[in-house]
Parts: sequence; C-alpha cells; structure tokens
Amino acid sequence: MTTRQDCLALDARDELAPLRALFDLPDGVIYLDGNSLGALPRATAARVQQVATAEWGRDLIKSWNTAGWIDLPQRIGNKIASLLGAGPDELIVADSTSVNLFKALSAALDLAQRDTPGRKRIVSERFNFPTDLYIAESLARQRGFELVLAEADEIPALIDDRLAVLMLTHVNYRSGRMHRMEETNLAVHGAGALVVWDLAHSAGAVPVNLKGSGPRAGAADFAVGCGYKYLNGGPGAPAFVWVHPTITARMDAEQLWQPLSGWLGHAAPFQFTPDYHPAAGIGRFICGTPPVLSLAALECGVDTMLAAEAHGGQPALRRKSIALSELFIALVEARCTGHGLTLQTPRDAAQRGSQASFARADGGYPIMQALIARGVIGDFRAPDILRFGFTPLYTRFIDVWDAVEHLVQVLQTGEWRQARFNQRAAVT
Amino acid sequence: MTTRQDCLALDARDELAPLRALFDLPDGVIYLDGNSLGALPRATAARVQQVATAEWGRDLIKSWNTAGWIDLPQRIGNKIASLLGAGPDELIVADSTSVNLFKALSAALDLAQRDTPGRKRIVSERFNFPTDLYIAESLARQRGFELVLAEADEIPALIDDRLAVLMLTHVNYRSGRMHRMEETNLAVHGAGALVVWDLAHSAGAVPVNLKGSGPRAGAADFAVGCGYKYLNGGPGAPAFVWVHPTITARMDAEQLWQPLSGWLGHAAPFQFTPDYHPAAGIGRFICGTPPVLSLAALECGVDTMLAAEAHGGQPALRRKSIALSELFIALVEARCTGHGLTLQTPRDAAQRGSQASFARADGGYPIMQALIARGVIGDFRAPDILRFGFTPLYTRFIDVWDAVEHLVQVLQTGEWRQARFNQRAAVT
Repeated sequence: MTTRQDCLALDARDELAPLRALFDLPDGVIYLDGNSLGALPRATAARVQQVATAEWGRDLIKSWNTAGWIDLPQRIGNKIASLLGAGPDELIVADSTSVNLFKALSAALDLAQRDTPGRKRIVSERFNFPTDLYIAESLARQRGFELVLAEADEIPALIDDRLAVLMLTHVNYRSGRMHRMEETNLAVHGAGALVVWDLAHSAGAVPVNLKGSGPRAGAADFAVGCGYKYLNGGPGAPAFVWVHPTITARMDAEQLWQPLSGWLGHAAPFQFTPDYHPAAGIGRFICGTPPVLSLAALECGVDTMLAAEAHGGQPALRRKSIALSELFIALVEARCTGHGLTLQTPRDAAQRGSQASFARADGGYPIMQALIARGVIGDFRAPDILRFGFTPLYTRFIDVWDAVEHLVQVLQTGEWRQARFNQRAAVT
Repeated sequence: MTTRQDCLALDARDELAPLRALFDLPDGVIYLDGNSLGALPRATAARVQQVATAEWGRDLIKSWNTAGWIDLPQRIGNKIASLLGAGPDELIVADSTSVNLFKALSAALDLAQRDTPGRKRIVSERFNFPTDLYIAESLARQRGFELVLAEADEIPALIDDRLAVLMLTHVNYRSGRMHRMEETNLAVHGAGALVVWDLAHSAGAVPVNLKGSGPRAGAADFAVGCGYKYLNGGPGAPAFVWVHPTITARMDAEQLWQPLSGWLGHAAPFQFTPDYHPAAGIGRFICGTPPVLSLAALECGVDTMLAAEAHGGQPALRRKSIALSELFIALVEARCTGHGLTLQTPRDAAQRGSQASFARADGGYPIMQALIARGVIGDFRAPDILRFGFTPLYTRFIDVWDAVEHLVQVLQTGEWRQARFNQRAAVT
C-alpha cells in the first residue's frame, strides 16, 4: 500500500513538478476541480493588466492592429491545434463551446444532407454533457433530424447506414470515460457518416490526435472544445472549433456557410459589403468581435500548458495523469470501504480521462460540501457523482494522498451529516 | 463663429465635465472613436485584477457562487436595461451582437411563421452594419425567407402586409442617421409584423425607450446591442439581448426556444437533464458559459455610464452629444470648404446619433491616417467615410475645436498626400 512518504517521493522525482510554480494556487487548498475551472497561471494577471491599461487604455482602437488583437483567435487557435494533432490554421478560438458546437454540427448536417439525404439520425451519448444534447436537439428540430441517445456501450451498434452524424464528447464529464477516437472515426467513416467531437475534458488533459495516425478515415471531421478547464484560460474563457482541412476545402469549393455568419468570418470584413462571402478555411467559423481580455487570459493558459513541452510534454502529462488517478482510485477503494462509494470511472486507464468519479446513492452532495469545507475542492454532479479532476501541471501526488485522507475522515466522523452540509445550494 | 475660447467656456460650465476623470485617457490624444471602442474607465483595471487574482486565483470554482459570477449576465443586463427604457429581467448580457441577433431574429421568424405564415420578407437597410445583414441572410436562406434591402428613406414604404420582420440598426454606423424608433414600431405593428433593433450605436449614446411612451404597439419586440462602444466595456466586450416581456411570456406559454439552446439558458442548468427546457423569460436567451473577465470589465463600463445619473443623466448626455456634433459639423463646414468633404450625417439633430460623418470621394483613408498620426483618432469606413464619434462622458468641446484645427491643417498642408498615409492597412 502506498504511503504518504511514497507520495512525497513520487513528487520529488516528478519531471513535471517545476510547472506547479507557474500557477498562483491558494494556500490550504487541494484543488481537484481543474476540469471545471482550471487554476490561475502566474503570468495571467499581469498580462490581462497590460492588455487593459496599455493596449486598451493607452493605444485604444489602434491595438486591433498594433497589439495584434485581430490575430488572437487564430494565433491562440494555432497553439491549441499543436496540442491536438491538428495543423496550423485549422482551429480557431471563438465564442463558447455551445455556440461552436452549433456551428460545427450545423455544417455537418449540411454535408450529410448533400451526401446522404435519406439519413436523419444524429447519434449521441445519453449522458453527454447536456449543452451538447440541447444544441443537437435544437438543430434536429429545425432541420428535420432525429436525435438518438444511447449508452456509451451501445454507440458502436448505432453506427450504420441510418447515421448522418455521430456527436460525442471524447471524455465524459461525469464518468471520465474516454472514447477511442480513431477507432470511432474509422467506424463512422466506414458507415459513410460524419463525426463531431467535443474535447471539453480532453484538450490539455489527454492525448488527442484529431487527424489520426493514418488515412483520412481515421481522422475526425469536426471538433469543439473549452478554454477554461485543463487549458486554464479563466472563467468562461472563449472556446475553440476545429474542422478537418478536407472539409473546409470542400466548404470553400461549394461556398458552404456555417449559420452564424458574422462579420469577422467574412472573406473581407473591412470591406463592409452587404453580402456575405465566407472566409476561406477555418476563418469562416468565427462570428462576431471576440472578448479580448478573456482571449489574453486564455493565451496565458495555453502558453502555460505549452511550457510542459520542455518537461516531457504531452506524454509526460498523460503518464502523470494516469498515475494520479490510479493512485486516487486505489487509495479510495482501500481506505473508504463500507461507505457506499462506487467507482464510475473505467479501471482501464486507456479508457479514462484525467479524473476519477465515485457514485454514492445517498449523501453525495453533503460529502462533497464537507470536503470543500476542509479545503479539498472537487465537485458534485447530480444526481450522485463525486468528481475529482487531476491536472498534471499542478496536482501533486501528495495532494492525492491528503485528499483521500480528508475523505476518509469525512466519512468516518460522519461530519457530512451536519445540517450545514445538507442544504442543496447552486453548484456549478 | 465659435472660438477656441468659447469651447473652453463651454467645458467650464459643462455639468458632465467631472465624468471625464472617471476615465484613463492617454495624453496627447483626442479620441473620437468611442463608437468603435470606448475608452478605459479608471475603475476597470483594478476590478479585472481583483477578479483574476482574488476571485479566480484564490477562490477558484467557488466564485461562481460566492463572487456572484453566475448572476453577472442578469445583473449587468438589468443595469443596461435601465438605460434603455426596459424593465428588470428583460435584458441579458451574452455572447456577441452577431450571435444575439441570430437568436433574436430567429425567434422573431418563429413567431412570424406562426402568426403570418404567408409573409416571407425580412426588410433591412442596405447600409446596415454588415454583420446584421450577414446573419439575416443566413437565417433567410435557412428558413425560406427573403431579405429585402432598401435605403433608409424607402423603409416606410416596405412596411406592408408582406413584411414578416423589420430589422434595423437604430443609429447607422456610417452615416450616424437615427431612425424614429417609436414611430417605426407603431407602423410595423400596424402592419401586423415584428421589429428587431440593433442598438450598437445607441446604447449609452442616445435616448432609447424600448417599451415606448404609450401602448404596446409603440414598443419594440426585440433588441440587441454592443458592450464595447458607448458602454465602454472593453475590446470585444459581451453584448446584450432584450425581448419585450409580452413576447417572452408567449415563448414561455408556447414553449418556444431560441436556436442556441445552451445549458445556461436551461430552466434548471444544474440538474444536468438530457432534455432542453428553456428558462422562463429572458433567461432562455443566454447560451454557454460567459467570459467572466470580460463581463467584469463591461460592468465597470456600464457603472461609469450610470455615474452620469448624478450629473443630469441621459438628458444631459443627449444635450451635450448634440452640442458636440453640432459644433463639429459647423466648424468643419466653415473651416474646410473647398476640400471635398460632404456631410453624411443628418443636419436635424433629432435624426442623428452621437457622431458626425463626412464623405470624401478621393483620399478619405490617408486623411484619417494623417489625423491619427497627429493624435486625433476617428475612423475610416470604406469606401469613403471619415467618421468622428462623440462620447459626452469624456469628449470636451475643446477636443472638438482642436480636432477640427488638426483637420484644417492636414487638408491645407496636404500632408495626407505623403506616401506613408497612402498604404491601405487593415482598419477596424
């Protein structure tokens, strides 16, 4: 059995350990909720201050050019692309994940209507993050498609000649289960359909190779993702959208739009012409003017992630992520027996994102509240999930040990039964 | 003829003069581009810093509740509503102007399809800001409507029984011409149609009374607007959307959606249910997670605008705005004769926003560049418009005098003909 001493030793030889100093982390807190809101990089506050006072305050409107504000969506997009196996100018930062999913799924449905007009099914996972389902539900209603929801295990059987678009979140927000992306892409393309991925819990957390390791059929078609989780871009940071270059080339050739045809996605926005002509490539997936302060913070977050390249990079992050979640699961299962916690996350690390979730049929919410009161911040997802996220950039092995120790104490003392933890509050 | 001395005297007795101290304005700059990007309020940088370091950095995910992040879209929305003759919980901050217009126009088309199914016309102004036209073009294509564009003068004749939705920008971004909102609403409603207003160049600049002065027929149906112009919310600040409460009540009763049905517009977002049920009222018009740093900056901008309430409020702002634009027009016309500048803005102040635009068929762009090189910042709008915005919160009469003096010198010396001003650069 691993001891606290062992955890200190693991931290001492962790090649990624120096990266923790790139974050401003509060004292007395074990933060296991970077999959909801990533922590503050040390560089961010000063950078945002510079954007506010020097670029906006002093240089005013000129900063769109002189400070490169106009280039931020593509510049940050290219940095994120480098984390996801995508090429330059294939991915752009814009809007929110929900809005980008609307654009991507709508474009996918346009292509499906052209290529496979008889197919009316959008398939997704029943426990996909709800915003994905709500957006798909809206587009299905508008466009005469049917949204078919299934358990993760049932998805492969639904990849058939009725399928127009498969829309999945790569790592499930509740269970942490990770789909096999390339295998899924091959199956979907083999069935003549399209695939849209939501990378909200993947970007910066697990290896992603959007273009696959081999032929086009193993690559994804569309992807969207979130800036404020493992990319540490700040609360509500702008999101991103990626489209395979063969698809944007086709959209160019066939003059296809995405529906949110705002002025910054125009081929020549500063010509102010009354007719819309989409920008080439991924450029058409931007819509209105982006929030620059929030973009600047996102860039700091992405740069902090890219700093890991000098410390073993994505493979090292993945190794540590797996080690952290394995340790957490092993410690909880060894030390919390008899308290009704059931692992919801796959035991096979290859099928797991960077989190561990336990269900507890009764009292999950007050247990998380009691942990938070002790400074161990994870989160609760209705109806019964205790969720713990591991961010290898700043989570230490000792944090995992101490978090489990607190959980043991919360369960053994029964302190979670106190009235103050039983009030259901708004949870985000 | 007004003299420089007269301008100093006007500033000395300006009741709004103390408000200029609420802004961080750069030395040596006369900023007449607040209608493109408003200036930095003095409170903003510190507030954004607080959000980054204390709310995000120290309190992390808890700040969604403890710092009230979750309430920001409605809280700021209510403040903006108070400037526009709208009631509480009728207006919400979200996304960009373009995205909000998509939501609002789409909802308007849904209602039109129910109430007047034979009507297929969306009417707008040919020189409306392009993003509005692009979004309308997209929705018209998708939904089987026809987008009819006309000159401002031709709009009244198009309000007839073929009209489904009239979509206008209240103050035109190029000419500064202001439509008569209440009169237009009455005509549109008399014709059995709906009206959507874009307030990008109105909010914080001119009096707006969305609910009209009398019966419902004089009120607007939908409105969207921009946070980064006269509201001084910062580059790319989030935008807003307002819907008349009789319409949101109907959307509630008939379970109507707006198409961007993201999770924060759900009736119970934290229940994480797979089916979308729109929030009541304006709440359904929010979509994904909003960018908090940019929202915090927007709130500072709106608060700075609200500070004018103690100095005469909106009527005082309007009086000063008119006085500034009248003075500018009079000085340019008196002092720049023979240089080919033609006023594009209505002479009748009642039909004018808070700007003055002059066309110059040849050389408009290098003239603006020469002015900017002298520290007089206005902007150029293709193909031939020199645009000058007046922000009564911080623009002084002496600024107007000095700006015209620079313009006279640029024209008389011919310095704008120098090669360095003839390169067409990206302009925003």
